[in-house]
Amino acid sequence: MDPLSAPSFEIRARDGAARTGRLATPHGVLETPAFFPVATYGAVRGLAPDELARVGVQGVLANTYHLHLRPGEALVAAHGGLHRFIGWDGPMLTDSGGFQVFSLDAFCRRSEEGVEFKSPLDGSSVFLSPERAVEIQEQLGADLIVVLDEFEEIRPGEPDRGRTRACLERTLRWAERGRRAHRRADQLLFGIVQGGGSPELRAESAARTAALGFDAFAIGGLGVGESPAERDALLAAALPPLSPAAPRYLMGLGLPEDLVAAVARGVDLFDCVVPTRHGRHGSVFTSRGRLNLRNARHRDSREPIDADCVCPVCARCSRAYLRHLLASGEALAARLLSLHNLAYYMRLLRELRGAIAAGRLAVYTVEWRARYRSETDDDSSSSSAVHSPA
Amino acid sequence: MDPLSAPSFEIRARDGAARTGRLATPHGVLETPAFFPVATYGAVRGLAPDELARVGVQGVLANTYHLHLRPGEALVAAHGGLHRFIGWDGPMLTDSGGFQVFSLDAFCRRSEEGVEFKSPLDGSSVFLSPERAVEIQEQLGADLIVVLDEFEEIRPGEPDRGRTRACLERTLRWAERGRRAHRRADQLLFGIVQGGGSPELRAESAARTAALGFDAFAIGGLGVGESPAERDALLAAALPPLSPAAPRYLMGLGLPEDLVAAVARGVDLFDCVVPTRHGRHGSVFTSRGRLNLRNARHRDSREPIDADCVCPVCARCSRAYLRHLLASGEALAARLLSLHNLAYYMRLLRELRGAIAAGRLAVYTVEWRARYRSETDDDSSSSSAVHSPA
Repeated sequence: MDPLSAPSFEIRARDGAARTGRLATPHGVLETPAFFPVATYGAVRGLAPDELARVGVQGVLANTYHLHLRPGEALVAAHGGLHRFIGWDGPMLTDSGGFQVFSLDAFCRRSEEGVEFKSPLDGSSVFLSPERAVEIQEQLGADLIVVLDEFEEIRPGEPDRGRTRACLERTLRWAERGRRAHRRADQLLFGIVQGGGSPELRAESAARTAALGFDAFAIGGLGVGESPAERDALLAAALPPLSPAAPRYLMGLGLPEDLVAAVARGVDLFDCVVPTRHGRHGSVFTSRGRLNLRNARHRDSREPIDADCVCPVCARCSRAYLRHLLASGEALAARLLSLHNLAYYMRLLRELRGAIAAGRLAVYTVEWRARYRSETDDDSSSSSAVHSPA
Repeated sequence: MDPLSAPSFEIRARDGAARTGRLATPHGVLETPAFFPVATYGAVRGLAPDELARVGVQGVLANTYHLHLRPGEALVAAHGGLHRFIGWDGPMLTDSGGFQVFSLDAFCRRSEEGVEFKSPLDGSSVFLSPERAVEIQEQLGADLIVVLDEFEEIRPGEPDRGRTRACLERTLRWAERGRRAHRRADQLLFGIVQGGGSPELRAESAARTAALGFDAFAIGGLGVGESPAERDALLAAALPPLSPAAPRYLMGLGLPEDLVAAVARGVDLFDCVVPTRHGRHGSVFTSRGRLNLRNARHRDSREPIDADCVCPVCARCSRAYLRHLLASGEALAARLLSLHNLAYYMRLLRELRGAIAAGRLAVYTVEWRARYRSETDDDSSSSSAVHSPA
């Protein structure tokens, strides 16, 4: 591997805690803050790589859990890696698979060594350890990879501090094992900050993960039920202890308002199913708010989804046509609405980067929030950001 | 309407009974023989207009039955017609809606005046007459439209000649009523040949439909269970009595081998759900036969679907990746396989046009048949061409 192709991160401007920069990978440079859509099985639900690139998508996240089970990392490696297998030449990120095991599979068996679970495909026993998680991701070959962490959902009310502490400690031990197992210099390995709903434990987890010597950090275990204010406090506690020059990735979030808030705290990278999942259900993002295209008021509308949007969908399709496709159960609806939503996200991130570079993020944020609430449909789905397959 | 934009047909070369030519419409010129994919609700299942054009699709068929029920022709007309509503600028064809009523709705009430049926959407009563069918299609605004016909499935064994005769006679009376109701000179109205499984009745239906003065002819009631040999005999009877200078459209067919056979008989235009429906189920067409990508032998294949194909799917995706997407239930699979299949159909039609122009259709057909059978998967779906929503 060409050592010149090792990932590197450069911060170009700061505005308060927020930063904008460039994360160089062997498959191209990311402008940060950046947002990655989710390609669970190696495809962003219904969308082809060329159209992702056309609306400005810089990178995608693929799920190690799903790809390990099917088709398996060996087949992917035989194809020359995930980039070639799925036909995406740009930056790519994989998760560790741990989140899916811990959150989706109630029957997993945790131990210090790793986690064992039954394959939902054939019932066979699968074992994931910190070393295996890195090894699988090395075979998949994404540019950005993460360590296996132990995850615990934040329960409203009384969080179990003892359990949170235990997950935090194990995550640190696993991070160290993952780091030692990591071989490929062309892949940037992210340590993961845990600490549940406690700002103190978040700060401790961040400081101790940083002390392990990682060059990049993910924030895990958020977007699982905490309020925006709680999340903001947890990010405010978790980010300052991290090496300031390292990229920070908030895993699995979120809605546009979540991104705007987290960017102000200093997050550089996001991934989430929200734009594609919402699109599939008729919920679309516009500069004036979130709309539900199933709403009867759009029935005769010859307007595009968003008059301010320059995406191919807004250039060509009326709300009435898109609503008709949704009502008819036509597969093109999911595709077009997902594509528009991604274009919206890419525009939002571009504007955030510009606002940081211009030193006017606070003003931008106030203006954005005021405008974003002006046309929201009352019955827009209020489902919040969630981790899980796209 | 500019009178110059009235559709016109010019035959440029003949080879036996086969012809190649140009059908000029207000939305562009079709090279014939041509094949239209089916955009039931105003979208070719999962595919966008720009990518249809990119693989060479010249025109699409939309279903009047479905669009009348939802969103209704008034809404479409308010958008400036179907071309603008769905964003397809090329030639477009609508059917009359009669096929769906007669074949899908066992509870329709037929009379000389027309046919009454219950809307599957809201149970309301809908009435379709020869005049209404033309009126609806005039509001939808396709370039090529068809009269309402009365249809009867060909039953294997003993066809009911009395019933077939009655349908034939009513279809002729309805054709005359449809022709009188037709106002828009920019739309080409097709009369429809019926006659069930009887070559004699087919020939009679064709001669009497031609005598009504139509400038274009559709062949209805085929692809519903008859054998290829029976169909060939019916086409051989139905086509010669038609005005030789008028375009002939074989409705709802078919597999590649069906197209090759019908072109040799003198058919100029086809529509069918086969390429998109087969694609959705993993069945793909190649120059060496039909493959089922779900077949385990493709699991590790780094080959494209068809090494001879220049479509975007064959340029970028291995069989293994496409099989993986199918196995994962990923929506992109249906889309990519449908797109490849359409590219295959477009190439086949292009080759047929070239062979006719070069006077070597018979040789081409023999060579094509020999090659097409060389790699077919044993378990390829054997479902034959069928009418119905895409």
